Amino acid sequence: MGIHTFFTSLNDLERIIRAPGRFKFEEHNVAAHSWKVSQYAMFFATIEERAGKEVNWKSLYEKTINHDFAEVFIGDIKTPVKHSSPELKEMIAKVEEGMMEKFILREIPDDFQGVFFDRMKEGKDGTIEGNLLEMADKLDQFYESFAELKRGNADPEFAKMYRIALKKLLSMPLQASVAYFRDTMLEDVMAEETVIDIKDITRQVLQQ
Amino acid sequence: MGIHTFFTSLNDLERIIRAPGRFKFEEHNVAAHSWKVSQYAMFFATIEERAGKEVNWKSLYEKTINHDFAEVFIGDIKTPVKHSSPELKEMIAKVEEGMMEKFILREIPDDFQGVFFDRMKEGKDGTIEGNLLEMADKLDQFYESFAELKRGNADPEFAKMYRIALKKLLSMPLQASVAYFRDTMLEDVMAEETVIDIKDITRQVLQQ
Amino acid sequence: MGIHTFFTSLNDLERIIRAPGRFKFEEHNVAAHSWKVSQYAMFFATIEERAGKEVNWKSLYEKTINHDFAEVFIGDIKTPVKHSSPELKEMIAKVEEGMMEKFILREIPDDFQGVFFDRMKEGKDGTIEGNLLEMADKLDQFYESFAELKRGNADPEFAKMYRIALKKLLSMPLQASVAYFRDTMLEDVMAEETVIDIKDITRQVLQQ
Amino acid sequence: MGIHTFFTSLNDLERIIRAPGRFKFEEHNVAAHSWKVSQYAMFFATIEERAGKEVNWKSLYEKTINHDFAEVFIGDIKTPVKHSSPELKEMIAKVEEGMMEKFILREIPDDFQGVFFDRMKEGKDGTIEGNLLEMADKLDQFYESFAELKRGNADPEFAKMYRIALKKLLSMPLQASVAYFRDTMLEDVMAEETVIDIKDITRQVLQQ
Amino acid sequence: MGIHTFFTSLNDLERIIRAPGRFKFEEHNVAAHSWKVSQYAMFFATIEERAGKEVNWKSLYEKTINHDFAEVFIGDIKTPVKHSSPELKEMIAKVEEGMMEKFILREIPDDFQGVFFDRMKEGKDGTIEGNLLEMADKLDQFYESFAELKRGNADPEFAKMYRIALKKLLSMPLQASVAYFRDTMLEDVMAEETVIDIKDITRQVLQQ
Amino acid sequence: MGIHTFFTSLNDLERIIRAPGRFKFEEHNVAAHSWKVSQYAMFFATIEERAGKEVNWKSLYEKTINHDFAEVFIGDIKTPVKHSSPELKEMIAKVEEGMMEKFILREIPDDFQGVFFDRMKEGKDGTIEGNLLEMADKLDQFYESFAELKRGNADPEFAKMYRIALKKLLSMPLQASVAYFRDTMLEDVMAEETVIDIKDITRQVLQQ
Repeated sequence: MGIHTFFTSLNDLERIIRAPGRFKFEEHNVAAHSWKVSQYAMFFATIEERAGKEVNWKSLYEKTINHDFAEVFIGDIKTPVKHSSPELKEMIAKVEEGMMEKFILREIPDDFQGVFFDRMKEGKDGTIEGNLLEMADKLDQFYESFAELKRGNADPEFAKMYRIALKKLLSMPLQASVAYFRDTMLEDVMAEETVIDIKDITRQVLQQ
Repeated sequence: MGIHTFFTSLNDLERIIRAPGRFKFEEHNVAAHSWKVSQYAMFFATIEERAGKEVNWKSLYEKTINHDFAEVFIGDIKTPVKHSSPELKEMIAKVEEGMMEKFILREIPDDFQGVFFDRMKEGKDGTIEGNLLEMADKLDQFYESFAELKRGNADPEFAKMYRIALKKLLSMPLQASVAYFRDTMLEDVMAEETVIDIKDITRQVLQQ
Repeated sequence: MGIHTFFTSLNDLERIIRAPGRFKFEEHNVAAHSWKVSQYAMFFATIEERAGKEVNWKSLYEKTINHDFAEVFIGDIKTPVKHSSPELKEMIAKVEEGMMEKFILREIPDDFQGVFFDRMKEGKDGTIEGNLLEMADKLDQFYESFAELKRGNADPEFAKMYRIALKKLLSMPLQASVAYFRDTMLEDVMAEETVIDIKDITRQVLQQ
Repeated sequence: MGIHTFFTSLNDLERIIRAPGRFKFEEHNVAAHSWKVSQYAMFFATIEERAGKEVNWKSLYEKTINHDFAEVFIGDIKTPVKHSSPELKEMIAKVEEGMMEKFILREIPDDFQGVFFDRMKEGKDGTIEGNLLEMADKLDQFYESFAELKRGNADPEFAKMYRIALKKLLSMPLQASVAYFRDTMLEDVMAEETVIDIKDITRQVLQQ
Repeated sequence: MGIHTFFTSLNDLERIIRAPGRFKFEEHNVAAHSWKVSQYAMFFATIEERAGKEVNWKSLYEKTINHDFAEVFIGDIKTPVKHSSPELKEMIAKVEEGMMEKFILREIPDDFQGVFFDRMKEGKDGTIEGNLLEMADKLDQFYESFAELKRGNADPEFAKMYRIALKKLLSMPLQASVAYFRDTMLEDVMAEETVIDIKDITRQVLQQ
Repeated sequence: MGIHTFFTSLNDLERIIRAPGRFKFEEHNVAAHSWKVSQYAMFFATIEERAGKEVNWKSLYEKTINHDFAEVFIGDIKTPVKHSSPELKEMIAKVEEGMMEKFILREIPDDFQGVFFDRMKEGKDGTIEGNLLEMADKLDQFYESFAELKRGNADPEFAKMYRIALKKLLSMPLQASVAYFRDTMLEDVMAEETVIDIKDITRQVLQQ
């Protein structure tokens, strides 16, 4: 019944755990994840600007902080569904969209509904800001799976997540950012001591 | 790749929290919920037997312990969706069904697939065992919301859950069980000291 | 003062942690454990039926869901005591029995006391259902210790628990179930990647 | 040793709990708090823009997501210190500053140090973006204390926090935002059912 | 196998939760409880010394820090048993004693066994130090139940615990300490705002 | 406002986590840590007495249980600061001292202020009791880092903490205690199975 309801619902995202059901040494909530994504995105945007690209910072700000708000309705379920089938994935997307629409129409005051429909739509839209969001989102999946492997989480799902995220990161259409990730950051990642060996997995993906 | 995978996935349900995202003084996982439902159902089945009904205990056992297994795929999201729209609810049901089918075909050995398709199908089917499952499932929703109200959880969603569960319990087609719940158990419930007053809500529902 | 008190006490078992005091990467409560045991038992009962044995499903249902209810009184302390001395073990059993009796006489309505005395008595009684309960209970100990070893829990108690559970499982008087566990499930268990090597321990026990 | 170290340190802020030591029904970490602040700030910036003010969105983005990064070094200790003495508060600020400087010089690559010194400096600087940050930061303190009072947290510190935050919010030099907060949001806040009465406190502060 | 095993077992007491199974807004472990007891006891010992009594500080130190070590074996189960029957209580005491003896003989080096048998025996022995231990132990029960009532825990067990602890505190044979507790501390306790009213309960007990 | 406030503040230390921000498989609070330190100190004091030293048990008791009370004000932040710079470390010490003074003057009754100023001052003062406190405090750091390494915590900070604590322990001016630690306890520590090898680190430190 107003922005108060929207602000209160942000708190709900602190209780939505990423990758629910799976054993993890450390859990992450969607609110904290969104913050880390907005940090990564700001860094890569800085790199792209230095490489001569133009960045719309307002758009990047909007995209990163809002990109997972829809999880307030049905939680963090996309990854396992994605591994399951494209039809199911599409259905889930429709459910989320439907619930978001209902939420905006019911809770957001009339004169802000336009702004909210705009900010809450899918952010990964092929613009440079959309690409920065996607790269930052994948980087968090990369770091979350890396941390589990580092501490000895033998669940094969995390090695898979690490591999998928790494592959995606290396193929993003953001030349300067990808080069920085590959040539500088990945060196530091591989220099860390880990319980489960990630050097091998990393090299395999790099060679493909 | 076998029953080992199925048995391991049971552990995942210990990490699926009921009513995720919502603030609760006490969290409940789906595994523990399933156990409580199988306890309630056994008690009401005893009452129905004494009242002359015939109970298929094997079926009741199967229905109660398996009724929420599908939440291993997409978590506990039905309640908020139900409050949202019937189309979304149906879509979610299809997603769950699709994932369950994939799971059985991929993980369960050939000679057990028939048994699993049978046990994992919707249990609330209008039989007496299906009704006992539904009554027991609602009773756990009743108890979960009661416990939150008792401790002072002022989130209006829990008063709503309490009211909906109570109404449903009173209207179940299990005469002896409903009478026992209404005339004996509800008296004890209303005698408890609670931070948020539930006597009023209870009486309102009873009078309807 | 009635079934309401009994139903409320089920919630208490969600707060009783198995193997308390010991460091574990993942904790399990007695309610969730009881549910997993009822799942394992149903599967092995299916195998025994196919092998020609007759199973009393009502009895199996009762035994599995009630087998650890007495832990509501003094918690989960049997394992360390068992490793300590038979006299202490027996004393603890008497304490539990005494508290259960008091509970039934004080809380359960007169006309249900007979049923409760029957359902709450020791379930591991040499019948096929008692054996299925014991096998399922051991399997959960097997899985709990396996999961700790897999994630790198170097506490020697878990290697010991794994070994004891495995030995017991292989010696249960349920030929078809034991064969299935040994020849099919154990293969899948040993194929998993683990931080602490369990293949060696497993082979040692198999050779004895 | 590079941006990898900085990105890893973001994860540390998920483990820094706000208002540590104090009993709370719900804990909040600094990462999630930073995200909520960036959400509130975006909303009020939209209101200010509509009221004719010019907003530098890049600056607002930088200020909000970085404003509590320094807590990675010494945790969330400012509030109790503030209530204690201005000299201590200043000393703490110097300690944080010193540690931040050391961190940037040691961990951030040379060509990014300028950017980081700029982004990590105190954000509440009297600009409109600085004011939006301050208002958003106070609003989160307002919501955190409100939620505790609503659920019955009788620790007088939370009533105090609520009062201080409310007073500060009403006095911010952001006319349109303050009007929206006072005339629209506060109505919704006061309409909520709460265990500890907040209407009285709110009215007292409004009348001053 | 030596003091290393004893020192490691202290860590186990950080995982033993007091009053397990019961819902609490805040849990307390036995290690932290032991520390609080040693703090309370030091304060009351100071009062007794000022009142002219002689205190053996070494004995008090030994008694307070060791008084619940035996819970490492069977957890914190005495209170519900006490409410149940004296025979069961005695049996539990014997089990604990038996396990303590086994532990000392097996783990403690020969030349320290005498010291450990002495330090680990029942501390509440009628000496002034034993009385100070008992008063401090009761005070922690008083504070634990007070904190639950203050926050709205409607479980009648906590009101009962509060009443029993208060009665015991007022009747301890430590005149100066009891006077200080009754005339000074209790005033401050009753001045606190609480969700569940404790003034009434307190006055009732005081009048008896 | 009296001793009641002081006693209540002890509870706050159960919510102050040691080494906050850092990932740990097991968290420890300051209250439980203080108890373990008072246990270790009592053991080493016994060894020193047997070796002919005189121990003031009252002083040792006071020093161990109070040594980290000041963390109630600003939490457990010394270790990272220590690694950072001596000036910052000194500043933090002054902040703590200032807050402690304010606390005693405001909360402790006049006739107990002297006792509290005495008990709360820095305990590591070069006396034998001060040395016992320091050794016990380091031993807990040793055990906390050991437990993390044992379970596979690959964060290099814990290997560093282990090395620093070990070096300090071996150099304490308590001959008999150090000899016992080095010749007896360290043997048992090194005999444990661990995920991350600690034998190497231990031998390196011993050879220096």
